[in-house]
Amino acid sequence: MKVKVSSPAGIGNIVCGFDVLGLSLDLPADIIELELTGDNKTIIHHTDDFGISEDPDVNIAGIALKAIQKHLDQQHGFIATIKKLIRPGSGLGSSAASAAGIVVAADHLLGNIFTKEQLVQFAMEGEYIASGGYHADNIAPCIYGGINIIRSVKPIDVIKVPCPDVYITIVHPMIEIKTSEARAILPKQVELYKAVNQWANIAALVAAFYSNDVALMSRALNDNIIEPVRSRLIPHFDEVKEKCLQHGALGGGIAGSGPAIFMMSNNIEKAGILEETMASVYRKAGIEYNTYVTTINKQGVKILS
Amino acid sequence: MKVKVSSPAGIGNIVCGFDVLGLSLDLPADIIELELTGDNKTIIHHTDDFGISEDPDVNIAGIALKAIQKHLDQQHGFIATIKKLIRPGSGLGSSAASAAGIVVAADHLLGNIFTKEQLVQFAMEGEYIASGGYHADNIAPCIYGGINIIRSVKPIDVIKVPCPDVYITIVHPMIEIKTSEARAILPKQVELYKAVNQWANIAALVAAFYSNDVALMSRALNDNIIEPVRSRLIPHFDEVKEKCLQHGALGGGIAGSGPAIFMMSNNIEKAGILEETMASVYRKAGIEYNTYVTTINKQGVKILS
Repeated sequence: MKVKVSSPAGIGNIVCGFDVLGLSLDLPADIIELELTGDNKTIIHHTDDFGISEDPDVNIAGIALKAIQKHLDQQHGFIATIKKLIRPGSGLGSSAASAAGIVVAADHLLGNIFTKEQLVQFAMEGEYIASGGYHADNIAPCIYGGINIIRSVKPIDVIKVPCPDVYITIVHPMIEIKTSEARAILPKQVELYKAVNQWANIAALVAAFYSNDVALMSRALNDNIIEPVRSRLIPHFDEVKEKCLQHGALGGGIAGSGPAIFMMSNNIEKAGILEETMASVYRKAGIEYNTYVTTINKQGVKILS
Repeated sequence: MKVKVSSPAGIGNIVCGFDVLGLSLDLPADIIELELTGDNKTIIHHTDDFGISEDPDVNIAGIALKAIQKHLDQQHGFIATIKKLIRPGSGLGSSAASAAGIVVAADHLLGNIFTKEQLVQFAMEGEYIASGGYHADNIAPCIYGGINIIRSVKPIDVIKVPCPDVYITIVHPMIEIKTSEARAILPKQVELYKAVNQWANIAALVAAFYSNDVALMSRALNDNIIEPVRSRLIPHFDEVKEKCLQHGALGGGIAGSGPAIFMMSNNIEKAGILEETMASVYRKAGIEYNTYVTTINKQGVKILS
């Protein structure tokens, strides 16, 4: 028995929703093929060029599969062939896509025996290796689709909220930021008034999602706690953001822990203008980059065959 | 020209929504009569027994009226007769009801010339005297009705969110807590992980309001920042909360800056059981108290005649 899935990129830490708000993207997406076997071995192949370890005790997908195997009475083995199209270390949820894609594929082969909460749990075991912590703001949207509030990871409490009609433009400058480093520079304490601003904004942002109010969304897309610290790790962040806001972006910020930057807009023409705006900054600076113009993926991981 | 309005109590600082989330209550409500005169004098009468100053430069309603007068080209005077039924210092938005009620009444007499944002601004000038800060989480719901997110007070950005089908039970133990004192004991800094929990909960709570999901509301009604500090000022708070949760409350906490405590429930029978649960704690402790069983007021200040 075999299955082939596409497992999409995503954006965690959406502006004022650090560790709490994530969304799934239409592009880019990894392609994962998984075969169920009779033994209890786990074999991982990567057909991409990212130099990812295929050792199932180190590989994110391997660890997530082992978390599933622990929950099964019967012995089941898996052979996975993973073609990553989401570049690791981009901030676009590459490791979450591996973890979430593999557990959805495995569940499909096993006859859809797990709840979405269980799938998030298994995938978190895998992603723990990448991020050094239990976070679901990339994994959950990959499994549930759309925009998710992660109210809690212990126990898992995910709320799927309505998707606004927005386009998302992304630039990924080719510099490396390790998630663990991006975490290390975070303050342990924040001023109460700043925290109050942040929860005012996330509350308003959720209201904007439910009411599809793009003007409110724009006002609420503000982060005065995490972005000022982490954006220092991303060359030209302020310039990209300022120019995008001048060119009609509703708002945006750091994707995950960076270095990718995303901006939301309410029509495809603006999304294209933002792509050129972002590209021109890094072209001028002589920094290699990728760009994407995409939308929110309402489904998450998709069974292809 | 005269008008008579009822201006309702409310709950600010709703659990995880400190300074941001407020709602308007059906009960209790102040009764305010206002007359427009030709001179530019402001006269305030109180027909209640709370010993509130009638000096228009000290009285909250007087200051709010003067804020309106500053915005007018023509000279207008006001004579206000206020019968407060919301006890000052209860935590139930007594000063906000004076400020919001008077500005809505004045606007009615002037021919509805102001926006709701302007009315909030005028009322905030009055309430500033009571709380020592600009806050709108009691004033806005009194003017807009229902449940409000105060995203910002500078500029004023209020979002009215849908009301869930809940009953609200309140106990007001007759002890005095000054808003200024309740503010003074707040921490200046909070741990980042606690702030993240708080914004996860408020995001989920807003989602629960939009989807009328009382189970989610119950899970999200958690505050690990303000309540642990302020509840120490309210005798028997923990006992009241614990017993109410045992008796079917969805959740609740301190109303405003206390000492009133509120609990939400999803039917009138439970709301009554909670009233008796709360009452029995203070009866046993020998502390005087008032109780209310009410619902969310979707309209706010109401023109009576």
